[in-house]
Amino acid sequence: MRVQVLYSGGQDSSLSAVLLEPFFDVELVTCTFGSENWRQAQAAAAAIGLPFWTLTLTREIMDGCIDLILKYGYPRYGINYVHRMALEALAAGGTKYVADGTRRDDHSPMLTPSEVRSLEGRRGISYIRPLAGYGRKAIDALVRERFEIVEGPAIEKADYEAEIRSSIIDRYGERTVERLFPEGHAQSRVMRRLQK
Amino acid sequence: MRVQVLYSGGQDSSLSAVLLEPFFDVELVTCTFGSENWRQAQAAAAAIGLPFWTLTLTREIMDGCIDLILKYGYPRYGINYVHRMALEALAAGGTKYVADGTRRDDHSPMLTPSEVRSLEGRRGISYIRPLAGYGRKAIDALVRERFEIVEGPAIEKADYEAEIRSSIIDRYGERTVERLFPEGHAQSRVMRRLQK
Repeated sequence: MRVQVLYSGGQDSSLSAVLLEPFFDVELVTCTFGSENWRQAQAAAAAIGLPFWTLTLTREIMDGCIDLILKYGYPRYGINYVHRMALEALAAGGTKYVADGTRRDDHSPMLTPSEVRSLEGRRGISYIRPLAGYGRKAIDALVRERFEIVEGPAIEKADYEAEIRSSIIDRYGERTVERLFPEGHAQSRVMRRLQK
Repeated sequence: MRVQVLYSGGQDSSLSAVLLEPFFDVELVTCTFGSENWRQAQAAAAAIGLPFWTLTLTREIMDGCIDLILKYGYPRYGINYVHRMALEALAAGGTKYVADGTRRDDHSPMLTPSEVRSLEGRRGISYIRPLAGYGRKAIDALVRERFEIVEGPAIEKADYEAEIRSSIIDRYGERTVERLFPEGHAQSRVMRRLQK
């Protein structure tokens, strides 16, 4: 059974892929709007040793996301929208199982239960969230066992937020981004897989 | 890392254990109120090939459960209470990771988010729900790949509902049970593990 995992190169989507690996043929897919920041995810995918693809999302999705961020004044609903469109794009590609690295305690990106039912029903697919039943402590323990990571606010990974921010800067300037996006939380990127 | 999984011998708790197995030292624990119906779970645990324990819950927990079922007129909150007390009992035993086979779309047994935070915070443990991110179709596909099961409304497994029902019959009679418990849904029990 083949599963495609939305992949950023960070610890959560990497752990999600590794949890699926004994049970599925796992492929990692990074969505972009055309920039080159998928190369970070590609390097992490190579470190993990799983097949890697990129999928370019349309300009309309970027525009819809930015509209939502401006409308609400914070990124949550715009990011949720891109995430949902990315899962829709994977599902449209014909895979029966799509997955991501969202955690039990995440708020965004996150689909609502009715969005999940709609995605699965319309597309005839199963959406899997391997980390949905794990809290932060258990995830951190598994990550320490399985990966060598780098962490910090300035770590680049491929989570489309960077592309959205730079597009907002292009259109509305630096100060608009500073107003809309809260302080950057720590990012992580997988550098090496530890053998168990 | 050792994890104890609340175990009934059915397909969900069996799949939950198997999903954890590549990452944890898994032990299966069946809770009882003193009856012998844990033997069904023991047979399933032997078929899966994982260590098996029983844990006897107190009479007070049974009484508290029956009080809740009578108070609400349906089993949900009583079953949730027993399930929470069973997780508390595992956590009190000193294991750092406790898990169960509850699914994404389950309503009962289910802890609320604040009950989860309380359990984890007071006990210093992590509560893991490996099936929390899986819908029914994906679970059914994995079960078919991994297990030979028997299914049907009359399948006995060790999910403490049978003990609670027979205790209510002893105290209040057959008709009270028929009023309180909806039609039995299909149960399953794992007979054999299929090698991948």
